[in-house]
Amino acid sequence: MSRDGRATLETVAVAAGVSQATVSKVLNDRKDVAAATRLRVQRVLDQVEYVPPRRTPTAADATGRRTVELVFTSLDSSYAVEILRGVSSSPVDVVVSTVADADDPRPWSTRLAARGRSGAIVVTSTLTAADQRTLARARMPYVLIDPAAELPTPEVATVGATNWAGGLAATRHLLGLGHRRIGVIGGPVAMLCSRARISGYSAALASAGLEVDPALIRHGSFHHDGGHDAALELLALPDPPTAIFAGSDEQAFGVAEAARLTGRRIPEDLSVVGFDDLPISRWFSPPLTTVRQPLAEMGRTAAAMLSAVLDGREPHGRQVELATELVVRSSTAPPPATAATPGAGTGRVRGRR
Amino acid sequence: MSRDGRATLETVAVAAGVSQATVSKVLNDRKDVAAATRLRVQRVLDQVEYVPPRRTPTAADATGRRTVELVFTSLDSSYAVEILRGVSSSPVDVVVSTVADADDPRPWSTRLAARGRSGAIVVTSTLTAADQRTLARARMPYVLIDPAAELPTPEVATVGATNWAGGLAATRHLLGLGHRRIGVIGGPVAMLCSRARISGYSAALASAGLEVDPALIRHGSFHHDGGHDAALELLALPDPPTAIFAGSDEQAFGVAEAARLTGRRIPEDLSVVGFDDLPISRWFSPPLTTVRQPLAEMGRTAAAMLSAVLDGREPHGRQVELATELVVRSSTAPPPATAATPGAGTGRVRGRR
Repeated sequence: MSRDGRATLETVAVAAGVSQATVSKVLNDRKDVAAATRLRVQRVLDQVEYVPPRRTPTAADATGRRTVELVFTSLDSSYAVEILRGVSSSPVDVVVSTVADADDPRPWSTRLAARGRSGAIVVTSTLTAADQRTLARARMPYVLIDPAAELPTPEVATVGATNWAGGLAATRHLLGLGHRRIGVIGGPVAMLCSRARISGYSAALASAGLEVDPALIRHGSFHHDGGHDAALELLALPDPPTAIFAGSDEQAFGVAEAARLTGRRIPEDLSVVGFDDLPISRWFSPPLTTVRQPLAEMGRTAAAMLSAVLDGREPHGRQVELATELVVRSSTAPPPATAATPGAGTGRVRGRR
Repeated sequence: MSRDGRATLETVAVAAGVSQATVSKVLNDRKDVAAATRLRVQRVLDQVEYVPPRRTPTAADATGRRTVELVFTSLDSSYAVEILRGVSSSPVDVVVSTVADADDPRPWSTRLAARGRSGAIVVTSTLTAADQRTLARARMPYVLIDPAAELPTPEVATVGATNWAGGLAATRHLLGLGHRRIGVIGGPVAMLCSRARISGYSAALASAGLEVDPALIRHGSFHHDGGHDAALELLALPDPPTAIFAGSDEQAFGVAEAARLTGRRIPEDLSVVGFDDLPISRWFSPPLTTVRQPLAEMGRTAAAMLSAVLDGREPHGRQVELATELVVRSSTAPPPATAATPGAGTGRVRGRR
């Protein structure tokens, strides 16, 4: 034990029955350690919650700026650019990486801990209890943007958006146009943001005196295929929806393509609302009505929270939710049956058909 | 002068009539130097082509990986994500920044030179002779991806795509479908890639025995508005085109919206071809026919070229062009007049209407 009661390299080496050099190799993720030995050392490290001496904060940059690692689940959408734009407009240097690394099968938190950044911002990923321990051991402060699942413990800094309010606003907009049969497509069931949005959808229906029809609720990946496949199912129902609220802009594009393939025009035959307000939603044809998440602002906020923790200005573990906002464009209109009726779209409640 | 004949801090200080500390402040971009003094020192530094002692290559990363700065003109499109995905799949750490920095009005090359990275990859930007000198002075190797304009000197490493061949392939595809009146929208006139694509377009028309009608050639920003505005002009011509080859996917989305606003369906009334093959072009409705640029591969290639230079394996200054490829999806079809005619689209040349 060191003077402050923390386990030292020596304690770990003795407990694991290996040399200090071997413990050091495991800590530095060197390849020349047998798998069984590595496992044994790792277990002891976990048990004693070994904290390596803090690396010099990355002041290596000649300008003295901090280096923050921005970790994405994947770089496959302009969602990532928006977050990146926000983080990179902050006075920190941003190193970008992804959770999966073809060259390195270790958990992302282990890789990250080995890199000696000032801190990290982790986007829409799952944080396990083991990840949390790894990052704590490396004394690396981090902020999660839109964490995928419930967190192991609450004392983690997070930045999200008001997903519930967004789901409510999108659904109210469609109700206001006169829609009564509204489909909703969430992301993967387990994802928090997805559950919050569908909960907002249900609340809007309930406050309009409408029952929630489980047949109108679907789940799929947040990508184009998720929206496309779920929309084909919804549109094949005996009593199909006249409007669909998608879980992301990408999903909404998939819904639009499903509508086109089944001979429906948007918005005349089907209204579509997205979620995110990526730049491309403005460029869609017709331009997409969507719920704006302030992604760049979320990136900037995460960077600011991290800087505050690094400066000792604020304790780690604040949770922030930035406001979502409905942006009405051209993909929503009154439903076909009522489009010609004067006075439609004033929110008259007729109950389910 | 130092022993190898280079100017030293002292030479510069004497020539500028200031202390060495002041020269050092200017070199380190400290704020506490009067503007006039800074200018005088900067002039001397430029005259003597002062080279500061090479900073330690950024081996600060605990994993010993190199840090490369990836500089974008702007982070406003998924074009950037694609390049980033390629670079970040390479065994280097990637710091992302943009040419414009709200907090720092200095030229990007000056900022970059001060940061002590191992090297830089610069995307679709203009490299002036002054930028080139600044980076040479900092001894920072760099690779340009798709440089915006002709380079001051040829001994610069660049990665691009076969723009001319892409323009040729897109136009031949439309000719093959039976189109004879084909509009083309380039990016800004000065941009090299834009000129190459339009030149490919002209070559395709010429080899089909068609004259180039200058009224069908437009220029605009590579963004949505550029395509939208140019398409509205083209579609308002007395003899409008039946197909438009846009300079980017984003422009193509603008063309599609212009078509929708003027009551045209795609591809029944107007065929549209884009350029880039961003992920969103697959998700467009209808999915976009486009010329694929291997953007991720261009990013990976740039990173590999930079690594080769840093390893001393290759001299700086290689120019690489990766192949473009036509991807046919659903936004192109035979022109309205010939759509019902059997045998249309076989490339029969009828001359201009």
